[in-house]
Amino acid sequence: MRITTNFRKISSVLGVAGLVALSGNLLADDGFHSKYANRFEPLPAISPIPANNSLTEAKVELGKMLFFEPRISASGVISCATCHNPALGWTDRIPRATGHAAQVGERNTPTVLNSGFFTAQFWDGRAADLEEQALGPIEADIEMNMSLDDAIKRLKGFDAYKEAFARAYGGNGEKQITPNNVAHAMASFQRTLNTPNSPFDRYLRGDLEALTDQQKRGMALFSDSGCGACHTGPALTDSYFHVIKVPGSTDLGRYLVTNNEADKHAFKTPTLRNVAVTYPYFNNGGTATLEEAVQVMGREMLGREYKKKQVDDIVAFLHSLTGEMPHIEIPALP
Amino acid sequence: MRITTNFRKISSVLGVAGLVALSGNLLADDGFHSKYANRFEPLPAISPIPANNSLTEAKVELGKMLFFEPRISASGVISCATCHNPALGWTDRIPRATGHAAQVGERNTPTVLNSGFFTAQFWDGRAADLEEQALGPIEADIEMNMSLDDAIKRLKGFDAYKEAFARAYGGNGEKQITPNNVAHAMASFQRTLNTPNSPFDRYLRGDLEALTDQQKRGMALFSDSGCGACHTGPALTDSYFHVIKVPGSTDLGRYLVTNNEADKHAFKTPTLRNVAVTYPYFNNGGTATLEEAVQVMGREMLGREYKKKQVDDIVAFLHSLTGEMPHIEIPALP
Repeated sequence: MRITTNFRKISSVLGVAGLVALSGNLLADDGFHSKYANRFEPLPAISPIPANNSLTEAKVELGKMLFFEPRISASGVISCATCHNPALGWTDRIPRATGHAAQVGERNTPTVLNSGFFTAQFWDGRAADLEEQALGPIEADIEMNMSLDDAIKRLKGFDAYKEAFARAYGGNGEKQITPNNVAHAMASFQRTLNTPNSPFDRYLRGDLEALTDQQKRGMALFSDSGCGACHTGPALTDSYFHVIKVPGSTDLGRYLVTNNEADKHAFKTPTLRNVAVTYPYFNNGGTATLEEAVQVMGREMLGREYKKKQVDDIVAFLHSLTGEMPHIEIPALP
Repeated sequence: MRITTNFRKISSVLGVAGLVALSGNLLADDGFHSKYANRFEPLPAISPIPANNSLTEAKVELGKMLFFEPRISASGVISCATCHNPALGWTDRIPRATGHAAQVGERNTPTVLNSGFFTAQFWDGRAADLEEQALGPIEADIEMNMSLDDAIKRLKGFDAYKEAFARAYGGNGEKQITPNNVAHAMASFQRTLNTPNSPFDRYLRGDLEALTDQQKRGMALFSDSGCGACHTGPALTDSYFHVIKVPGSTDLGRYLVTNNEADKHAFKTPTLRNVAVTYPYFNNGGTATLEEAVQVMGREMLGREYKKKQVDDIVAFLHSLTGEMPHIEIPALP
């Protein structure tokens, strides 16, 4: 029962957080904390839970099964975990996603980690929340390429799923195997995939030793440069859309959802949480290193050219955003 | 440190086994145990360790990283775990393996579980042991499609691998990243992927309640029919080659390795351990259910037509061969 462990961990982290925050007040300042810490928010161990999808262990366990389930793809070999690979920061670390029949999509796979903190999903925000997002990749012809009808039929073929849906939603398990319930279970599982307690979070909570001097300089430059205008909130994203043309991209982005001229080449601000382990970067995955990514962002979004030392400081800071990875044991599927 | 848990589990299982075997001697016979139990061997928790590849925790941990590592494939998205999927009985549960560029191979993916007990590897035995087997799929153009030179170069690009190879083999980590050491680490990891303590094992060790009456009848029929001539030893395979033409297969099998006429259409006896969760069946994966598989084996190998009730009994017995799956936490790769 790994999820029990996760729940236990979550509560223990919250406990530690409280203690550290308390003791932090007693520490001497390092010249950065008093000025910058209140510009940021530490990452909570659990993301907001919507009123219409209470988080239960049964839903999380079911969602985990579904996340690793390749039989809801046309080929029978692609699951959510294929591109959102837990071994690779819950993304695939290739420029653009490879899906059904080895087709390569237009966009870089975003990490699932901390996605419960976003208020828009996908690069173009075409889903508002994880419940809306969950079913898209199953049906997308370049991803899993299976109709929801077929996916539901496949799941109904397994007694273990009937039992798991009954545990999660009560009543007759077979009847509970619906697209809506699939989406709710997957969303519940994803809301547990958070990475609290990064060096940066420990620093914000008062552990002045958690960051190196270089990382503190990077944090200050990040904040003073205005990066935090978009990279804000606990997941360091506003979940909002901004026009950006990164090297090699012609993607119209948000425009394809809204048909609004102003949204041409607009993309959702990606989270910076775990950014050091979710390379390559940007909507087209065309930028391999954090150093290049920081330079591109300086030029495109801030109209400035960072010096090498500045880039190095910001990159050092970004490395401090790698948190504790969720401990996931692979489920044995029926 | 999941592997620590595995080691702990292995020793606890051995302990339980000893106790159960002891108490078993004191139990009344059920009319089957005294006659049949000594025709079989329970599955040990660890497979034989070769003298030239001692099993160490560092090698197992490294082997686990490599097993989940897709960057040693040309596409960057295929790892050992893609086809030997831990969620699916360490196989893929499709008829024939899907590999590089969505190519479909000729043969069904064998499970990795308990493969350390085999004295020949692959369906055609072209590798003698896990060390010889490990590198084949990396280079195969329809599997991972990467030259070993390129794979070694990729691994050398990660500090985490340099450190892991140094931990496993000592000395300079970068220099230790060699095909031989990759193979030894993967083989070490695979030797921990065993499934002891199935109902059948508990029965053999004296727990007469571990099998149902139907399963005991199936065990007796399995043995009396001669299935055990090939399905023998702890993994219920002789690791030897037998001519068999299963429905839909034209594969020349072992002949392609030996060029010996007698080996045409000969394939290695597959393990029956966990056979209920490693469907579909046979070298071409062309048989979907255990019921059909038992009938095919009766006809092709034993020249007999099992009655429906007999098939059901044997299938019930085969279900008792599903053991405890290894608990594997997905490693966080660099």
